[in-house]
Amino acid sequence: MAARITLIAALLALASSHALAFDPSPLQDFCVADYDSNVFVNGFACKKAKDVTADDFYFTGLDKPASTANELGANITLVNVERLPGLNSLGVAMSRIDYAPFGLNPPHSHPRSSEILHVAEGTLYAGFVTSNTENGNLLFAKKLQKGDAFVFPRGLIHFQFNIGDTDAVAFATFGSQSPGLVTTANALFGSKPPIADYILAQAVQLSKTTVGWLQQQQWLDISQEYRQRLVQAN
Amino acid sequence: MAARITLIAALLALASSHALAFDPSPLQDFCVADYDSNVFVNGFACKKAKDVTADDFYFTGLDKPASTANELGANITLVNVERLPGLNSLGVAMSRIDYAPFGLNPPHSHPRSSEILHVAEGTLYAGFVTSNTENGNLLFAKKLQKGDAFVFPRGLIHFQFNIGDTDAVAFATFGSQSPGLVTTANALFGSKPPIADYILAQAVQLSKTTVGWLQQQQWLDISQEYRQRLVQAN
Amino acid sequence: MAARITLIAALLALASSHALAFDPSPLQDFCVADYDSNVFVNGFACKKAKDVTADDFYFTGLDKPASTANELGANITLVNVERLPGLNSLGVAMSRIDYAPFGLNPPHSHPRSSEILHVAEGTLYAGFVTSNTENGNLLFAKKLQKGDAFVFPRGLIHFQFNIGDTDAVAFATFGSQSPGLVTTANALFGSKPPIADYILAQAVQLSKTTVGWLQQQQWLDISQEYRQRLVQAN
Amino acid sequence: MAARITLIAALLALASSHALAFDPSPLQDFCVADYDSNVFVNGFACKKAKDVTADDFYFTGLDKPASTANELGANITLVNVERLPGLNSLGVAMSRIDYAPFGLNPPHSHPRSSEILHVAEGTLYAGFVTSNTENGNLLFAKKLQKGDAFVFPRGLIHFQFNIGDTDAVAFATFGSQSPGLVTTANALFGSKPPIADYILAQAVQLSKTTVGWLQQQQWLDISQEYRQRLVQAN
Amino acid sequence: MAARITLIAALLALASSHALAFDPSPLQDFCVADYDSNVFVNGFACKKAKDVTADDFYFTGLDKPASTANELGANITLVNVERLPGLNSLGVAMSRIDYAPFGLNPPHSHPRSSEILHVAEGTLYAGFVTSNTENGNLLFAKKLQKGDAFVFPRGLIHFQFNIGDTDAVAFATFGSQSPGLVTTANALFGSKPPIADYILAQAVQLSKTTVGWLQQQQWLDISQEYRQRLVQAN
Amino acid sequence: MAARITLIAALLALASSHALAFDPSPLQDFCVADYDSNVFVNGFACKKAKDVTADDFYFTGLDKPASTANELGANITLVNVERLPGLNSLGVAMSRIDYAPFGLNPPHSHPRSSEILHVAEGTLYAGFVTSNTENGNLLFAKKLQKGDAFVFPRGLIHFQFNIGDTDAVAFATFGSQSPGLVTTANALFGSKPPIADYILAQAVQLSKTTVGWLQQQQWLDISQEYRQRLVQAN
Repeated sequence: MAARITLIAALLALASSHALAFDPSPLQDFCVADYDSNVFVNGFACKKAKDVTADDFYFTGLDKPASTANELGANITLVNVERLPGLNSLGVAMSRIDYAPFGLNPPHSHPRSSEILHVAEGTLYAGFVTSNTENGNLLFAKKLQKGDAFVFPRGLIHFQFNIGDTDAVAFATFGSQSPGLVTTANALFGSKPPIADYILAQAVQLSKTTVGWLQQQQWLDISQEYRQRLVQAN
Repeated sequence: MAARITLIAALLALASSHALAFDPSPLQDFCVADYDSNVFVNGFACKKAKDVTADDFYFTGLDKPASTANELGANITLVNVERLPGLNSLGVAMSRIDYAPFGLNPPHSHPRSSEILHVAEGTLYAGFVTSNTENGNLLFAKKLQKGDAFVFPRGLIHFQFNIGDTDAVAFATFGSQSPGLVTTANALFGSKPPIADYILAQAVQLSKTTVGWLQQQQWLDISQEYRQRLVQAN
Repeated sequence: MAARITLIAALLALASSHALAFDPSPLQDFCVADYDSNVFVNGFACKKAKDVTADDFYFTGLDKPASTANELGANITLVNVERLPGLNSLGVAMSRIDYAPFGLNPPHSHPRSSEILHVAEGTLYAGFVTSNTENGNLLFAKKLQKGDAFVFPRGLIHFQFNIGDTDAVAFATFGSQSPGLVTTANALFGSKPPIADYILAQAVQLSKTTVGWLQQQQWLDISQEYRQRLVQAN
Repeated sequence: MAARITLIAALLALASSHALAFDPSPLQDFCVADYDSNVFVNGFACKKAKDVTADDFYFTGLDKPASTANELGANITLVNVERLPGLNSLGVAMSRIDYAPFGLNPPHSHPRSSEILHVAEGTLYAGFVTSNTENGNLLFAKKLQKGDAFVFPRGLIHFQFNIGDTDAVAFATFGSQSPGLVTTANALFGSKPPIADYILAQAVQLSKTTVGWLQQQQWLDISQEYRQRLVQAN
Repeated sequence: MAARITLIAALLALASSHALAFDPSPLQDFCVADYDSNVFVNGFACKKAKDVTADDFYFTGLDKPASTANELGANITLVNVERLPGLNSLGVAMSRIDYAPFGLNPPHSHPRSSEILHVAEGTLYAGFVTSNTENGNLLFAKKLQKGDAFVFPRGLIHFQFNIGDTDAVAFATFGSQSPGLVTTANALFGSKPPIADYILAQAVQLSKTTVGWLQQQQWLDISQEYRQRLVQAN
Repeated sequence: MAARITLIAALLALASSHALAFDPSPLQDFCVADYDSNVFVNGFACKKAKDVTADDFYFTGLDKPASTANELGANITLVNVERLPGLNSLGVAMSRIDYAPFGLNPPHSHPRSSEILHVAEGTLYAGFVTSNTENGNLLFAKKLQKGDAFVFPRGLIHFQFNIGDTDAVAFATFGSQSPGLVTTANALFGSKPPIADYILAQAVQLSKTTVGWLQQQQWLDISQEYRQRLVQAN
């Protein structure tokens, strides 16, 4: 059971690494994030230019699959400003997503970016749901094969599911240095502290008992490596 | 039962009318939306200036409670660019939200704006959940009384619940002409067409039977008046 | 007489608390203003995330009328980033305006935001004047009653006047964390130091004597609570 | 007398041609304004690329003084998107200002841009007034000689006065394709239709008689060439 | 010889497909580009929403190597708004780059975006050069292997060279729907019409004879598929 | 010879001082750059408001020709945020360019701004080259005389050449506080450390010997005064 929960938590975490937002423009060539600064601003304070080297613009390890041995059967490797300091002020980020057979990057949204998902290996079913419209919440979804790409607009809930019987790999393009990840089920049922059960019961049309059961599950984040720092502090 | 479902759907719709985003800047004093144009752009095409009158900047009816006789016990009156044409290109919108006792504006997010909620009557419990962080999805929530205000950051899931035994009224401030509304449960369980039940079952840790039952419910939008036009076309 | 001048000054100050601007986008969920920081940036530096609580997103007192016992017969309660730290980087602000009978929120503009004014009590006459156009400076104005709203585009001069014989209350929606307030008469006749009288005389077609008399009046700011900090320093 | 009023009106018009705002970014190399389009958008619709020539990026006549034979003793030559179509979507504009001895570019603001004023000939006294602050509306002003430059922040009231006994010439740099011009006195006393005299009397602490007299004056726009088109229509 | 020139031209074209800029924010969920519209705006006019399908967000063929049988030994497959209509207003784009052994994506810049380059196969040497600084134009460069990523800031000249003896493949992430591509040598020596030879001779410190010879070469664009439409017209 | 190289280097440096970009909006009236701060952010940290004076918005010396006694026969005087602290957060900058007869402001681009060039004295030939399009890299160029202006879109390569037999002077308008300058030849052939000769040889279709010779030349920056600080540190 614990394993299953871990897996699910891991898969839920998957949901995260996709879209790019529309950040403020840079005011100099670059402004490499200074992780050691004790000054916190919108984005990051910058390193002194004389200390900047090519390594500040460099990231390695995107060829390595992350373990999908979790309940969701998926895992995410993020390349955002919290892990690649040279991205600060430059308005781009990316990620790698690994999927076991039937692995799921569960429904999630990115508050600060749209996304292009590109399938490098395997076969995925991917889609997004619009905001509330006159005609309801429309699902736009598609089966994707190796070499296909699909677009997820900013702030909308989207997902990918490995419908093949082999591992799958995808890469995501974002337009923000820190697109942010809201895994829908984690935010609803796994917040700390929890949202009151009678509120969730009313919202999702389930009994308080079922909601309570859900809230006792573990809702792991499959983008464990992800450091969405609140502001830039700890 | 149908009534209950209708109510819930209505209440879920409530969730919508809050935050403002960061729109592109205006390039002239104003650019009043031309609802009759057959040209669709980012935002709306504009009316000829000679046809613009004070009425294009005017909205009425915010003193009228919307009916909360639905399962969620809440209702939303939106004032966005789709209903107040003078807002086009100006980067602001607002809404009124009515709550019956125990009425709920269910968990939702606005893809294109932050929000300030101001309680005009009654007592609400309101909160938002952060994106995935090192410390999980944190809930920031507060009991609000008449005269109190609370902030919901852009793109994050938030809600309000009437914890008083009287009707409540709130007004929301947004920073986008069309903040957009994603009612979380509607998007998950009520999309058209539906998301595959096995995907949702895996994502929310429920049986396919329970998910199937959820998908058969009605997920009404309590911001019925809201016309989130996809692009600006019909 | 002094009282009258004080009142007028106070009323002039009223002019302030309205419109929304188009701020830079956030680069994380939130960046709560650290009022104690000795580092000054565009906006505010942020508190450490571990120190952030729900109270940082909370404001109280919007149900309390501010005193209108001044010559303008109006007063403003601002909710901007200088008073609600959670607004930092989120692009929204709001205000409450109280009007005695015949109270005036005098002509003013917001350099960084458009505005929606919503009348909660009473009857106002409100309007804005366009920038210089081929057809002159056009006035768009309207009588507003309880439940009505009106739009003031960014940077344009606008005003509200209580044409009823009862108190009036309005709320303003802005699209900037700090829309700024330029009360026109205050800026022209009450600057510190004053603009040379011969310049103003030429500009407003009045005698130097009349201008000199005007410059000796008090031009109070009815948004006394307002802390439009220059930069963020003192 | 009429001549004097005309002059003043003309000088008031001078106030206009300065600062640039922060426009939306371009999405292609260029998007030359199509003045003949019957489609109106934020900014201008674009010409077909095959019809674009170098002349679309070209403006002539900045070496020609505009007549200062008006009551303000000043005149403005604008180079904005309404007169140089290649500026559309590119976020810059400029202007030339001519001043007779003692000529005045009267107090005005630009809703959509900051400005750098560069003195090419003569000696000016120039300044701007801040928005309402804890310490009042602060005047920052300076005597400028040939070769000097001064900055006026976006949306703030500013002016220039020729304190020499020779003609003066200045050039202004803006950060918007259409910074907009609000000549303060024109907007207050010369709007069409007029603002009610009792409102202005209360706002500027003058008698209704004096206000009425002011409203009967002509408030000419010294940037006659300026076509601040409302939206982009006629 | 012609073949060689063709190859080089093709390789030069390669330089193109990388970084994204900071586009204006979307004002609705999506605004799918209508390639058939005869209305040209900043970006593209949108299709009617009822005509939008999942295929509008879909692109295929990224698994197919483009031919590198040209003098540069490289080729680019672009996925921007001109080829994937769903990207309009969403602020992201991407590309695939193929490199033969010793193939070169020659020095180029993107006017509207930063870029992350991710090496999927092979070994590249990649770098960018800063703008003019106190210390000159600094080169930041690095050897990249499979799984490595490198950042190129917006508007700066950068390149990649295949230093391995096998084919290489990379993918680029951009933060604009149309980042634009300026292949440096093409723009200098291959413009239509040409820049005068004496200007180039003076600029690049070469004889007019050598410049003339360069101008007679073919400067092919290896992103042949790329349709950087001037405005959006033909 | 060294002199000639120095001259050319100097002229190449000229290329720099033109266009403005689209910076993040200001969040207060002003935020004067604090050159002494040891905190580095996107742009500059601000001085305390109480220490701000009119001199912070003031620049002098634009009437003084800079020496054109260098190989390019041109020189640039920049007025950007690195030299005029009041420009910080305000989105504008400008420059003066001096040209000896046959002086050249060599091909260059501005990563963060468009530009308007205004000819104050003399006769120039000026042009820009588009990014790669279906029809190649198009040159838009024009002979400019005193009083003429020409537009250079953001990020595109452009140049000016003095075709008259007298000195020429031009002023440039930018829409960014720090537009940045990439002198094309300097970045290609004069970077520190150099780009490998075999890469440049392949890119520009010259022999390694010729490239090596070019790399041994001096590539001076004629905007010596320009302090494009990398980030804001030293």
